[in-house]
Amino acid sequence: MDLKVYRITGKETISIREYATRADKKLDKADIRDRKMPDNIARMAAFQEKLYAENQHALLIVLQAMDAAGKDGIIRHVMTGLNPQGTRVVSFKVPSSEEKDHDYLWRIVKALPPRGEIGIFNRSHYEDVLVARVHDLVRHSQLPPELVTDKIWDTRYRQIRDFERHLHENGTTVIKIFLHVSKEEQRQRLLDRINQPDKNWKFNAGDIQERRHWDKYMDAYERMMQHTATENAPWYVVPADNKWFARYLVSEIVLNALETIDPQIPSLSPEDQAQLAECRQLLEEEAST
Amino acid sequence: MDLKVYRITGKETISIREYATRADKKLDKADIRDRKMPDNIARMAAFQEKLYAENQHALLIVLQAMDAAGKDGIIRHVMTGLNPQGTRVVSFKVPSSEEKDHDYLWRIVKALPPRGEIGIFNRSHYEDVLVARVHDLVRHSQLPPELVTDKIWDTRYRQIRDFERHLHENGTTVIKIFLHVSKEEQRQRLLDRINQPDKNWKFNAGDIQERRHWDKYMDAYERMMQHTATENAPWYVVPADNKWFARYLVSEIVLNALETIDPQIPSLSPEDQAQLAECRQLLEEEAST
Repeated sequence: MDLKVYRITGKETISIREYATRADKKLDKADIRDRKMPDNIARMAAFQEKLYAENQHALLIVLQAMDAAGKDGIIRHVMTGLNPQGTRVVSFKVPSSEEKDHDYLWRIVKALPPRGEIGIFNRSHYEDVLVARVHDLVRHSQLPPELVTDKIWDTRYRQIRDFERHLHENGTTVIKIFLHVSKEEQRQRLLDRINQPDKNWKFNAGDIQERRHWDKYMDAYERMMQHTATENAPWYVVPADNKWFARYLVSEIVLNALETIDPQIPSLSPEDQAQLAECRQLLEEEAST
Repeated sequence: MDLKVYRITGKETISIREYATRADKKLDKADIRDRKMPDNIARMAAFQEKLYAENQHALLIVLQAMDAAGKDGIIRHVMTGLNPQGTRVVSFKVPSSEEKDHDYLWRIVKALPPRGEIGIFNRSHYEDVLVARVHDLVRHSQLPPELVTDKIWDTRYRQIRDFERHLHENGTTVIKIFLHVSKEEQRQRLLDRINQPDKNWKFNAGDIQERRHWDKYMDAYERMMQHTATENAPWYVVPADNKWFARYLVSEIVLNALETIDPQIPSLSPEDQAQLAECRQLLEEEAST
C-alpha cells in the first residue's frame, strides 16, 4: 500500500479540508477485514518480538483525533495482537496539579517507551497546541506571564520538533496519526452513543460543547501538522469515517515503521558462544551422573 | 561582585587552562566567611520563599566537577540555609538498567524541579558528554550502532542546548557551575582522604584511575562548555582550590539568578479579597456567639 498519500513530512503546504475522511470505494472491505488485517497483525507481532530481543530501538505511536473518531477502537483492534509485555498504552487526560507544576513535555517524557518496546499515546503533547490553543488555556496557566507571548504556538511547534528529533537521534522512531473524521460522521456517532443504551457510558455532554469549536480545531490541527511534521517524525492523516479502513491503514503505517527499524535478534559474540558450549556441557554431564 | 569574569555564554572562545583555580589574594577571607556568606544565605532564603509562593518559575543549578573538587561541600554549605520543602538535590550516578533503556535526558527530565522550587543536580546530563566521551561509553551502550557516528558529541551538545532552551522558555532558569580545581589541589585532597582516618570513607580507588585521564577530561570540559553555554543557560567556571571562595562565589551566582527571576508574592484579585473579607466576618462572628 502506498502510504505517501496519507503522509505529511513538513515539506508540503497542507489544507486539512482536502484530505479524505472516507475510504476509497474501490477497496474490498471483506478481504481487508478477514484476510489482510489478521495477516498484518501477525507480522506486527513477529516484528515486536525482534524489537524486544534487540533492545535498541523503541517505537512511539501518537494518536490524535476529535471525539468519537475511533482512537480507542484503533488501539483495541490494531494493538490487541501485540504482546502486552513490550507494549504500553498511555492516555493523557487533563493535567494533574503535579503535571501543571512542570513544563508540558515533562509528563510526556516520563511516559516514553523504553528500548525494545512499542508505546502508544492516546492523546499527547499535541493537546498543548490543540485544546490549549482553541481555548487559550496558556493565559490561565501557571506559566510566567512574560513567557505567554503572541509567538507561543510557533515556539511550541519548534520545541516539539526539537524534542522529537532528540527521540529519533536516540533510537526512538516517532509516528503521529491523526484520525480524520468528518463532522457529519461525528454527529452520527455521538447520536448513537445517546440512542443506544449499551453505548451510553461513552457519551460525554462536554463533547457537544467541543463540537461547536469544530472549525477552530480543524485550523489548529492544520497548523500543528504543518509545523510539526518532519521526515523523521511524520504525521499521517488517516480517513476515519470507515472504521475497518482506518484500522487497516494504521496497521500498515505501524508495519511500515517496524520494517524501517528492521530489528534483528542479537547474534552472540564468540565469547558468549563459548560460554553457551560450556553451559551445554555442564547440563549434559548432570544427566549422566 | 562582578560575575562576568566567571560566566561563559557561548559567544567567547574559551581555554579552560586560562581560568583561575585559586581565589584572588586581595580578598578578605574572614569578612567573606563570617559576614558576607551568612548574609547571602539569608537573602537566598528570602527569595526562595517568594519563589515558592509565586509558583511560576523554577531554578535549576547544575554542578559539575572533577573528583574532590568540593561539590558535596558546596551543597552542604551554600544550600543548607534553604527550606528543604522547596529544595531538591538529585545526585546522578552510573545509570540503572531502566535508565539505560531510555535516552540520556530521560532521567534528567524526571528529576526536574517543579515550579516554585530550586533543584540542584549533583552531576547531570553533562556526564553523557564527559565520562561518556573520555571513556567512549556510547560505543558500548544500547544505542543503535547506526546512531553512533563521529558527530555524536556535536549532536549531543545541540540536543542539550535545545533541551535547556525549552526549560528556559517554560519558566525554569538554568545555571551551570563547573568547580575548577587544579590537579595539584586534587592530589592533596585525595592524599588527605587516605591519610586522615575520618576522611577514609570518602576515598574511592577509582578516583586515582580517573585522575590519569585529567587532560582528556579538561578537553572534554572545555568543548562541552564552549558548545553548551548560552545567554539563558550560562556556564560559570568557579575557582575551587579555596573552598571558602568557591562557596561564596556560588552563593553570589545563585543570588544573581534569583534576583533576575525576581519572584513576587501573589497579590489577590478583587474577588479573592472579597472572599477574604467574608471569611474574616465568619471567624469574627464565631467568637461573638
